[in-house]
Amino acid sequence: MSEANRRMILNLVLSNAGSHRGAWRHPSTKLEDIHDLHHFLRLARKAEAARLDSLFIADGLSIEVKAVQHGPIFGYEPLTLLSSIATVTERIGLIATVSTSFTEPYNLARGFASLDHISGGRAGWNMVTTGVDRTAANFGLEHLPSHAERYKKAREFAEVVLKLWGSWETDALVQDRASGVYADADKVHDIFHEGPYFSVRGALNIMRSPQGRPLLVQAGSSEEGKDLAAEYAELIFTIQRTFEEGQHFYADIKARTAKAGRSPDSLKVLPGLHVVVGATEAEAQEKARELRGLGSIERSLMSLSNMLGIDFSGYSLDDLFPKLPEPGEANAYQSFHKMVKAVVDQRPVTIREVLEKYWVGNGDLNIAGTAEQVADVMEHWFRNGAADGFNVMPQLNGDTDLFLDLVVPELQRRGLFPEAYAGRTLRENLGLEPVL
Amino acid sequence: MSEANRRMILNLVLSNAGSHRGAWRHPSTKLEDIHDLHHFLRLARKAEAARLDSLFIADGLSIEVKAVQHGPIFGYEPLTLLSSIATVTERIGLIATVSTSFTEPYNLARGFASLDHISGGRAGWNMVTTGVDRTAANFGLEHLPSHAERYKKAREFAEVVLKLWGSWETDALVQDRASGVYADADKVHDIFHEGPYFSVRGALNIMRSPQGRPLLVQAGSSEEGKDLAAEYAELIFTIQRTFEEGQHFYADIKARTAKAGRSPDSLKVLPGLHVVVGATEAEAQEKARELRGLGSIERSLMSLSNMLGIDFSGYSLDDLFPKLPEPGEANAYQSFHKMVKAVVDQRPVTIREVLEKYWVGNGDLNIAGTAEQVADVMEHWFRNGAADGFNVMPQLNGDTDLFLDLVVPELQRRGLFPEAYAGRTLRENLGLEPVL
Repeated sequence: MSEANRRMILNLVLSNAGSHRGAWRHPSTKLEDIHDLHHFLRLARKAEAARLDSLFIADGLSIEVKAVQHGPIFGYEPLTLLSSIATVTERIGLIATVSTSFTEPYNLARGFASLDHISGGRAGWNMVTTGVDRTAANFGLEHLPSHAERYKKAREFAEVVLKLWGSWETDALVQDRASGVYADADKVHDIFHEGPYFSVRGALNIMRSPQGRPLLVQAGSSEEGKDLAAEYAELIFTIQRTFEEGQHFYADIKARTAKAGRSPDSLKVLPGLHVVVGATEAEAQEKARELRGLGSIERSLMSLSNMLGIDFSGYSLDDLFPKLPEPGEANAYQSFHKMVKAVVDQRPVTIREVLEKYWVGNGDLNIAGTAEQVADVMEHWFRNGAADGFNVMPQLNGDTDLFLDLVVPELQRRGLFPEAYAGRTLRENLGLEPVL
Repeated sequence: MSEANRRMILNLVLSNAGSHRGAWRHPSTKLEDIHDLHHFLRLARKAEAARLDSLFIADGLSIEVKAVQHGPIFGYEPLTLLSSIATVTERIGLIATVSTSFTEPYNLARGFASLDHISGGRAGWNMVTTGVDRTAANFGLEHLPSHAERYKKAREFAEVVLKLWGSWETDALVQDRASGVYADADKVHDIFHEGPYFSVRGALNIMRSPQGRPLLVQAGSSEEGKDLAAEYAELIFTIQRTFEEGQHFYADIKARTAKAGRSPDSLKVLPGLHVVVGATEAEAQEKARELRGLGSIERSLMSLSNMLGIDFSGYSLDDLFPKLPEPGEANAYQSFHKMVKAVVDQRPVTIREVLEKYWVGNGDLNIAGTAEQVADVMEHWFRNGAADGFNVMPQLNGDTDLFLDLVVPELQRRGLFPEAYAGRTLRENLGLEPVL
């Protein structure tokens, strides 16, 4: 794609009260909205009116009981919530996270094909392998399989899903009343997949969906995660803390995509963007300061513990951060582990320091400012090889309106973001090749 | 419940073109409706306007490639479709079939809790064990586990699901901004389930749903199926061919429910009702005759083969029906096997005879007539200990409107069916005890 035609991709990440853990306590949050379906439907319609590309739902398959005291859990199962949202929207993409470790490829392929039919071609699957060890215990296992094992299985899982989505040819339907032929059985195929992890005969019990196949999205930034994305995905979501890290990651992904035999343009890199928007810089900074005061450091420690696979229960917050094993030895979120390890290997820091200074919103790119200031940062990343767009996470849901009303038009004025949807399906709207 | 307060329960079974396999070929069917979401949304709203209790979606997890030529497959995954329907309806119940043999209890419990939240308390789970052997091959198995094994697993599956639905107490939410306490961690419980089939730690990653727990429905009529229903279910769907068989089944179920320590009223018996409605009897009979001419006997044979677990490929339709094994020896739909066995053991019959005479719409109760005639049969079954209501299956989707516009008001005139919904949740509307 020539630089002139290039345009930013923007997804909105749905959350109960905002991406900041303390957002539910902020006075601008209506407590009755936090779990209300209609609140999510309203956000979805508003995001569509602003022409956002997709809504995105992150997901996990376990909770830690003691964590519930610190803030809301999302709760809604992504495919059901997005099916509801699909019914009151027409153009916006709908991306759900589902793990390859705890479901069957036949069920997953069918669920996403169903959402793609329900939405008229707007479904996307964010494939994750699940990195939180306690999840294993909800599915009959003591521990998660190793990182390498999970990714080997994920790769075969994706293969099976793609075969199932392709098991009905586009023109299989005949519907000839006179002869009584409903569909052409020669255009529906068993897949007879046999692999180390899965044996699946097929065919899928749902016709080919409007997009040919739903969008593939990947959200892990380990070596295996990046390779999986380079081979299969159309979008990659990533956590990048600084512009330089973002540039490095971007170049790495594009190179891997080329190496996998695909055009580097065919995989779009979308860093997470935690954002606070204000009418003035002072207002934005004040909101960010308020939010910092509302977070629970104990809750952040629990998350850190889950993501690193380390038990901090014997430590106090002012103890020095323990030495982290080499990435290959830790069964954790590899890329996150690497980031924290870089910080703690540099000089002695306390656990509190890591939580407060280096780990805001899981370490993602983080901006508080006016619409213009936010757009400046986004443009800088976009124009200088660090992003094809962003997974937007308003730190406060109240800021979603500000982002949509102020930042999006500013990006449109700068010619960075389109004014209207190009088509009906998510693939059409993203300018991706149709899958026939 | 006293006989005076007793009222009929009516569910509408969703289908592409009607419950008759030839319905798609009937001139009253619009081919473009068959797979259209908006067609299902329209049916749902119309059924709600007529005050039907629930919509019901049957389901399977495999297709036979050569079957697709004979008629539509439903396709939509039930939880996603019902989440869409939930968004445009307010009162009608939403019952989805999901198998206990090919999913994880944690995922299932979460999916139904999510639908219950999305619908404001209208979700029901129809638990089945899957009896079609070829399904096994879509999930890494050569064959289905035995009937007995599947039901043992289903029972433990239901136990786990109930524990997970109960893992959040009703008043766990606190939402105290000042203290920063979001939920009371003492009111959210890991379940630590350990059994022969499942090991699940819990808690569920979604708050308690509006119904406390979604409705439990059971649809198998084998000995094990009936016992499972008697112990857990609130509705049982069944296939009954004659009034006498219906009475016998009804008495059997109520006795088993009492034996399980529950009030016989707490489990409602709903036979399937294949119905053709006409303005006159002649019109209804003519439609029924047209439909018989549109069915494919080859397709019926495939279904028979799947349900009995018998390969008919070496037979011609005019061969004598082969001898069936004793029920305990067949890994098939046990109750269906028993019904067909009773016919073929009585006297020699050809395969064609069984398909044409004894097996219309899987053998269910089957009526073609005026609204009054249809209501007469329903009243007879309802008043004389054969049914608490019906799972209504219009043989032609065009007849759904006739059923809703003519039969339902006739039942209301007779005082058999209520005029308005009693509450907001499915449990309230069915007059069932709340689950706190």
